[in-house]
Amino acid sequence: MNTLGHIFRLTTFGESHGTAIGGVVDGCPSQLKIDFNFIEKELLRRKTSKSSTASQRNEPDHIEWISGLLDGVTLGTPIAFLVYNEDAKPSDYEALKDIYRPSHADFTYEQKYGLRDWRGGGRASARTTLPIVVAGAIANQILKGQGIQIFSEVVAMGDAEQARKEGDTVGGIVECRITGIPAGLGEPMFGKFSAELAHAVFSLPAVKGFEVGDGFALANMKGSKTNDTFINRDGKIVALTNHSGGIQGGITNGNDIVFRVAFKPIPSIAQPQQTVNRAGETCTIAVEGRHDVCALPRAVVLVEALAALVTVDMGMMANTRKTQ
Amino acid sequence: MNTLGHIFRLTTFGESHGTAIGGVVDGCPSQLKIDFNFIEKELLRRKTSKSSTASQRNEPDHIEWISGLLDGVTLGTPIAFLVYNEDAKPSDYEALKDIYRPSHADFTYEQKYGLRDWRGGGRASARTTLPIVVAGAIANQILKGQGIQIFSEVVAMGDAEQARKEGDTVGGIVECRITGIPAGLGEPMFGKFSAELAHAVFSLPAVKGFEVGDGFALANMKGSKTNDTFINRDGKIVALTNHSGGIQGGITNGNDIVFRVAFKPIPSIAQPQQTVNRAGETCTIAVEGRHDVCALPRAVVLVEALAALVTVDMGMMANTRKTQ
Amino acid sequence: MNTLGHIFRLTTFGESHGTAIGGVVDGCPSQLKIDFNFIEKELLRRKTSKSSTASQRNEPDHIEWISGLLDGVTLGTPIAFLVYNEDAKPSDYEALKDIYRPSHADFTYEQKYGLRDWRGGGRASARTTLPIVVAGAIANQILKGQGIQIFSEVVAMGDAEQARKEGDTVGGIVECRITGIPAGLGEPMFGKFSAELAHAVFSLPAVKGFEVGDGFALANMKGSKTNDTFINRDGKIVALTNHSGGIQGGITNGNDIVFRVAFKPIPSIAQPQQTVNRAGETCTIAVEGRHDVCALPRAVVLVEALAALVTVDMGMMANTRKTQ
Amino acid sequence: MNTLGHIFRLTTFGESHGTAIGGVVDGCPSQLKIDFNFIEKELLRRKTSKSSTASQRNEPDHIEWISGLLDGVTLGTPIAFLVYNEDAKPSDYEALKDIYRPSHADFTYEQKYGLRDWRGGGRASARTTLPIVVAGAIANQILKGQGIQIFSEVVAMGDAEQARKEGDTVGGIVECRITGIPAGLGEPMFGKFSAELAHAVFSLPAVKGFEVGDGFALANMKGSKTNDTFINRDGKIVALTNHSGGIQGGITNGNDIVFRVAFKPIPSIAQPQQTVNRAGETCTIAVEGRHDVCALPRAVVLVEALAALVTVDMGMMANTRKTQ
Repeated sequence: MNTLGHIFRLTTFGESHGTAIGGVVDGCPSQLKIDFNFIEKELLRRKTSKSSTASQRNEPDHIEWISGLLDGVTLGTPIAFLVYNEDAKPSDYEALKDIYRPSHADFTYEQKYGLRDWRGGGRASARTTLPIVVAGAIANQILKGQGIQIFSEVVAMGDAEQARKEGDTVGGIVECRITGIPAGLGEPMFGKFSAELAHAVFSLPAVKGFEVGDGFALANMKGSKTNDTFINRDGKIVALTNHSGGIQGGITNGNDIVFRVAFKPIPSIAQPQQTVNRAGETCTIAVEGRHDVCALPRAVVLVEALAALVTVDMGMMANTRKTQ
Repeated sequence: MNTLGHIFRLTTFGESHGTAIGGVVDGCPSQLKIDFNFIEKELLRRKTSKSSTASQRNEPDHIEWISGLLDGVTLGTPIAFLVYNEDAKPSDYEALKDIYRPSHADFTYEQKYGLRDWRGGGRASARTTLPIVVAGAIANQILKGQGIQIFSEVVAMGDAEQARKEGDTVGGIVECRITGIPAGLGEPMFGKFSAELAHAVFSLPAVKGFEVGDGFALANMKGSKTNDTFINRDGKIVALTNHSGGIQGGITNGNDIVFRVAFKPIPSIAQPQQTVNRAGETCTIAVEGRHDVCALPRAVVLVEALAALVTVDMGMMANTRKTQ
Repeated sequence: MNTLGHIFRLTTFGESHGTAIGGVVDGCPSQLKIDFNFIEKELLRRKTSKSSTASQRNEPDHIEWISGLLDGVTLGTPIAFLVYNEDAKPSDYEALKDIYRPSHADFTYEQKYGLRDWRGGGRASARTTLPIVVAGAIANQILKGQGIQIFSEVVAMGDAEQARKEGDTVGGIVECRITGIPAGLGEPMFGKFSAELAHAVFSLPAVKGFEVGDGFALANMKGSKTNDTFINRDGKIVALTNHSGGIQGGITNGNDIVFRVAFKPIPSIAQPQQTVNRAGETCTIAVEGRHDVCALPRAVVLVEALAALVTVDMGMMANTRKTQ
Repeated sequence: MNTLGHIFRLTTFGESHGTAIGGVVDGCPSQLKIDFNFIEKELLRRKTSKSSTASQRNEPDHIEWISGLLDGVTLGTPIAFLVYNEDAKPSDYEALKDIYRPSHADFTYEQKYGLRDWRGGGRASARTTLPIVVAGAIANQILKGQGIQIFSEVVAMGDAEQARKEGDTVGGIVECRITGIPAGLGEPMFGKFSAELAHAVFSLPAVKGFEVGDGFALANMKGSKTNDTFINRDGKIVALTNHSGGIQGGITNGNDIVFRVAFKPIPSIAQPQQTVNRAGETCTIAVEGRHDVCALPRAVVLVEALAALVTVDMGMMANTRKTQ
């Protein structure tokens, strides 16, 4: 289940310190001139080495385009791409080979698969989200042509610089807004726009919460205060307020889609922690390697990318109905 | 997209005041003796007329079993079932036919489909969640045979009796716990256990938030406080704390799965509200009909049912790998 | 896996002598006025009692429409329908309960599921194809609005009247033609139009062969004789011949789609046959019950229905690409 | 729709003269030690340059393994692999850029996508079947561990050497046999083993027919001659004959699965042919390039590979049911 989407589909592959990571975008419309500059910029936004909160791994992140393009234009066939893991240093991780790092996926991967790629988190590493950014940038290009734009920002975050000094890490919240989105997208009963977004963002490492519109705050409010009144604005029916976050009954109402994603602190901390190894023996680790203090700065671009993938997919799904 | 699940799949159909609502469960193992009493009890828990917070619609909710069973035992073929809408009073809704109720799905359904079933919310009605309860009860039976149990409870809710007096409604939060679940369930990258749960619960009307483990609270904490330490408990490796809510890297770690779902207040309030009709004219409505003051009491059973569907599906998916 | 199609999806359920058989059509465009007369006529074409080659089971085949329609117009929500099994006589089959009829699915269903519905073939009965006809008729209505028509006929069949006298059965071949189909439908690599058709028709009982265009005959021919020359006919590029059957590279070329389906003789014969029972004991059976001598007359409408389902689905899939 | 399979899934990508072709195998069980020698041998069987009937393109076909393996053992994560197109000579095809070769996919791809990769057939080239062989070899390894074996052979073929002299091409028929397969595999109603096989083989270029067991010949026979009698052979129930080709009711009965696939002659012939170009002007072409006279020798390994993919997938699907 390494494929996301129904029509516009992204399949990703790759381990953090394997040969390469990459993806296949299937279902992309043909005759789209790819804006490679934009994709590079998005990758740069995600890149780990630019931020004081981020890890020291230094990857050129050069995309090798494998298929689906002719002279930079989409053919309608699958678009495959790779990014080689050039700065991979598996040996950094050898000491952790037999240790289950607390709140990492080491233990669960081994429980599931009977073995795991211990090199830098393997498939569970945040590096494996890179193909999402590439595919999301392609999706974003399609959306721009439709007047749809996506913005994310960090709306809550712990004190990262303090945490770094303490050998600790922090979490935070990303808010995302999709503007210019038409009413009528989303596929009840089990493909509601909100459900598709929730599904997508929970694919990211460290995500522990998701809410749309006023979200959890709505649980403490009354209907008379949270209902979004419809008005007629210059001949167009719109909702005056947006407690719903642009989605009602699982379908967009034309207002901005607004949602928030909660990230837990990165589990790799420099402070010594107690854990157990594969033999079940208690041991102490202090994770060194090259790790972020906070995932939020790079999470922003990931959330945008996933929002773009879901939005394009829901738009293409809505198109299917134009048959009659 | 009215189908949920990958292997154990539920397809639902039906409008609130149409002939009937129902579902088809495909992929259910054969030779399971259905516990009809348990299913009836679950339906009763969901039933609308028993609670002071709930609406007055009085449905017998008798299940007609259509297929997939022989002498009450599953055949491995699709299990179809119906519940007729016997107390349907479409005329109650005639006055609302051309009006877009605030924060309901009236407007978005019309934007999407060009028309809508105005009788009691049609497909967007909470009544259409009934098949989820039936299918969830079947899933629950399978889980019980595996020692897995699911419990939900309301952990936050507005003051319903006060709201009723004011012609208002309230929201709340349901917490769900899955116990006895083995480590190793969940399908990265895009079928993580948390993502599947998020997807499922956002299929319910009025859901606006979802969090796993400590959820949004993790955004304000430090890694040193939120990491779950592994210990060796009598030869078994377990996580001592459960900030992760039983899921790490998208895969169960053997701890209880804990998640919470936020519901907005029901949008049908008795207080007069301003809105617009299909002609774009401003008008005032006071929703009467038979509506709940709060969806939470019945949401509890729905959340459990969806958790059961997801858990069975993830378990069956994990079984596929036993090929070699 | 009781669902056919990607966007326009049919889920079927029901056993031959259970409560009812039926289906759910998901993904049907909204605002389609259903032609109930046409559907009834299609069912009548399929009906068992009208032909001298067909069985004596006498079912009214009245369709109960459960959901997805308002005043006969599609809502865009799932269309569920049932046909009750009113003339079901399970007792006719009691003698066969423990016997594996040769070339029937009795043995394989038991091997798969550990039990089977022995009443008239259960889920493996030809009666379970009825929902395909209903859904196919809806699909056909959509196609007619697009100028696409589908015709099938029996092009080969054994001597049925002679076979009846001998207590025997015969097979045959159905040819189907889809006219008015636009070029460009079909989804390489693994959703080619021909592959989708092949998949669909092999869902029917007794199907053992499928070929497109000149099919198996092409294996004995040379390229110079089988290539379809393109010409410019009044400004439109068309293939002058149709050895390809309207599909090249898995995509329609605008010519008629032509394919053939081979059906084996019905395995229920009146002549005594040797077989074994569940205990592994050799025994002799002479199948009485109410069985056809030849499935071909009713297979014609089934093949058309499946062709319609595939064609609508491929058309809707092609629509997805209109995003940019 | 470049993905085949439900649980064991192959996604392919690549154009004939693009950067590379490749695939992603998702859902492969972990802890499988890959037999790279076997995969290389299978690729060699498919290779174009070894046969007197085959084209002159000389590719080393070196597989680059990108992900999913650690020390040659599967991790349970997606297995991505590439084969670079090193001997690609796009310039060979420049003359054909604007011409629709008869019975090729040039015209249909342009009708579908609005453009096409004219370099050597692009995505429609037989070269794009290479990833099927790689994935099929992995599937075959799994099957061998279960005692299942797959053999194909050419059972009909035109006179290739004569055709080469005449600048012509020939078609033929491949027969495939799967031995050691357990009873009970296949997923009615719409995932029958026969339907899955039919779907898979029609993904290959030039396939125009598919039949199971006695196939089309059954259309001319009587039930009394085609029924497969069950007998008790040393305590095991088996079918004495195999007119059904090992599949009854869409489910395996434990006999060998036997099916045949008809291939049309390769459409690229050296003889001059009339056709039209993109401007609609009549023109004459004599296809030179590097083309096979007959696809059959390499089709043998492709048919085996697809049979292996389907068989593993159906086996894994059957495993899902072991939940209770």
